[in-house]
Amino acid sequence: MRHILEHVRTQAPLIHNITNYVTANDCANILLACGASPIMADDAEEVEDITRICDGLNINIGTLNHHSVKSMFLAGHLANELRHPVLLDPVGAGASFLRTRTALELMDHIHFSVIRGNMSEIKALSAGVGMIANNFDTGVGTAKGVDANPFDAVTESTLDSSVTFAKSFAKKHNTVVAITGAIDIVADADQAYIIRNGVPMMARITGSGCMLSAMTAAYIAANPPRILQAAAAAVSAMGICGELALERMSVMDGNASYRAYLIDAVSHIDGAILEERTLYEIR
Amino acid sequence: MRHILEHVRTQAPLIHNITNYVTANDCANILLACGASPIMADDAEEVEDITRICDGLNINIGTLNHHSVKSMFLAGHLANELRHPVLLDPVGAGASFLRTRTALELMDHIHFSVIRGNMSEIKALSAGVGMIANNFDTGVGTAKGVDANPFDAVTESTLDSSVTFAKSFAKKHNTVVAITGAIDIVADADQAYIIRNGVPMMARITGSGCMLSAMTAAYIAANPPRILQAAAAAVSAMGICGELALERMSVMDGNASYRAYLIDAVSHIDGAILEERTLYEIR
Amino acid sequence: MRHILEHVRTQAPLIHNITNYVTANDCANILLACGASPIMADDAEEVEDITRICDGLNINIGTLNHHSVKSMFLAGHLANELRHPVLLDPVGAGASFLRTRTALELMDHIHFSVIRGNMSEIKALSAGVGMIANNFDTGVGTAKGVDANPFDAVTESTLDSSVTFAKSFAKKHNTVVAITGAIDIVADADQAYIIRNGVPMMARITGSGCMLSAMTAAYIAANPPRILQAAAAAVSAMGICGELALERMSVMDGNASYRAYLIDAVSHIDGAILEERTLYEIR
Repeated sequence: MRHILEHVRTQAPLIHNITNYVTANDCANILLACGASPIMADDAEEVEDITRICDGLNINIGTLNHHSVKSMFLAGHLANELRHPVLLDPVGAGASFLRTRTALELMDHIHFSVIRGNMSEIKALSAGVGMIANNFDTGVGTAKGVDANPFDAVTESTLDSSVTFAKSFAKKHNTVVAITGAIDIVADADQAYIIRNGVPMMARITGSGCMLSAMTAAYIAANPPRILQAAAAAVSAMGICGELALERMSVMDGNASYRAYLIDAVSHIDGAILEERTLYEIR
Repeated sequence: MRHILEHVRTQAPLIHNITNYVTANDCANILLACGASPIMADDAEEVEDITRICDGLNINIGTLNHHSVKSMFLAGHLANELRHPVLLDPVGAGASFLRTRTALELMDHIHFSVIRGNMSEIKALSAGVGMIANNFDTGVGTAKGVDANPFDAVTESTLDSSVTFAKSFAKKHNTVVAITGAIDIVADADQAYIIRNGVPMMARITGSGCMLSAMTAAYIAANPPRILQAAAAAVSAMGICGELALERMSVMDGNASYRAYLIDAVSHIDGAILEERTLYEIR
Repeated sequence: MRHILEHVRTQAPLIHNITNYVTANDCANILLACGASPIMADDAEEVEDITRICDGLNINIGTLNHHSVKSMFLAGHLANELRHPVLLDPVGAGASFLRTRTALELMDHIHFSVIRGNMSEIKALSAGVGMIANNFDTGVGTAKGVDANPFDAVTESTLDSSVTFAKSFAKKHNTVVAITGAIDIVADADQAYIIRNGVPMMARITGSGCMLSAMTAAYIAANPPRILQAAAAAVSAMGICGELALERMSVMDGNASYRAYLIDAVSHIDGAILEERTLYEIR
């Protein structure tokens, strides 16, 4: 994993982000912290120009609207044409029909190198729009807003079936899927990294998922021949930074300090720390 | 007040925010800090889905536009139908005709459990659109942008008349009004909490008002039978956190550290601290 | 420069910002930190009301769209009519045709007291839309997203030609131009301040340019008769704050802490510190 992280710092990929306004600042700062450069642009008149000068594309459907969705398709198509890695973060898939349908339509028309979400979001994508529409009719959704439903948590007892699910999702959609939570699974059709870095505190700040997606986009853009490994490295690196941030907390520190420490840790982590602290197995 | 705060942590209400892009991240983090969960969504195609899965709705008119205004009405109507508590933060009412008119139209069509603003904003709403239109013709407004006009400050000498004004506003609009400033007044038609927590430093960071509104939405969503008390508890808790944050500042700390300490304090405050430090009287 | 900084604190100008959603929060906080007040508003229905109650206007084209561009023209025209200082931050000019064209059209129709950008952005504006369109045809741009192309850096060896370029740009567009980077140049047609404050770390957080633009808008709004000096003071003050923030960093601090320390420093810097630490020459 060491070389993957180091490539990000030496190549400093420029990442085009079409993302939500809640965590855009955090995403820009995490990209700078990990050694990449961010640009945010979501107007249909300019997204293709921006995609063209970038090395990778991060599409995040939080606070989407019909303007930004149009831009996601335009930028995604061009990025595919240019063979730039493209990542999808289906924030809140399962929480609204619009988000679920948009994510599924994007997946139909654009090839994503990586799809990163929590288990509730990935399950919603797997269930498809038919089931979701039905859920909305009956008022039942699987997600708790943008957070995973605790019922969907990957635990040691559900790990086997979750790995099987991840591989099958990855195969069906010809992608790498990164399902993050207490235990993270990063899988393609054949192989799954099971990663045990990270701490529950990461879920108590907004944007930890969005930041991970932006950083993963940088990792895959700097390591295009090794998408699965790069995504796993990004997930493990972010988890380690979450651990380092927690170790740094003093008694009066809370959510806001933790968020700063997490970004700080991303700016400091190097290949040696990653190799020393990474906790993963491959199945 | 202790149980009100504790209910927020045990029930972890999910709050739908239709809010401005300036402080959306702060609002999301303060909701997580106080024990609630945030979701931001403002597209007309999805706001009803989001409102349906949430426990409360926070409408904030900062950086509004005709798309988001449409969504405010849709979400507000449904939240009323579902009997979810709804809060209005009329950011900048009095600063533009659009904001004043929008806030008043929202108040005409949607029942707000709580309206929270500074005195200039609440006075602008009280004066109504006729007077405001007139002010704009003559170039005279009461607000200094999104901050209260110092002339409108609630002081000991204007407290009696301010309490009377607050109760009358609350009665007329069938709501609880929270007017925050150096002295805070939280009132329904019959009763007013006069709260003396908080420090002037809170006005020197952006978003302290928006964050309080988001947190108040969480407090009322977790305590629907006690709207007045819940709003007062939120206002007092935020003031106490402002005090705690100030006590923590060292010589080189300034606005940005203060903002982090404020959110940190919200993540730590518990029922015991609230009861010990709250400073209020009821009139 | 001392009196210029002190005027900002005593006059507390209200600054209207039409700006991107990535760094809007940082811009609001930096304005409060330097002693000014922010208001963000970008809807065409309200921008003129907002401009009217403000003392200065900051137009930033990051994450622009056709709605916000329309508002930039409306607000800019009125601010000119009211003789309020107006600043343009052409974020990403050269990175997309839309941004380049929009910045140039704004410059054609609105008088800007100050235009602040990095050298790649200012060169893109100087080259004009003809050349840029051509670059996009051939896939060649000068900017690296929103960051300056290293090839465009102002160094001691390119300083003379850069100063000549800055003065000529300022003359042609009847403005003060602030070109910021390792060495900053703030010039009108006749005079250039060459400022050597600041540290490279400032480029490793998002928004340092946007924050400087917002702060410069406050400085010129509080010192309308001395636009060139006020812009130079803002650039020097921000650079000094960047140095102070770096001096404060401890071993685990990274990007996020640096950002907080920078804003903290802006809230503390006074006329005496500015005079003591400013490093400039006039050519």
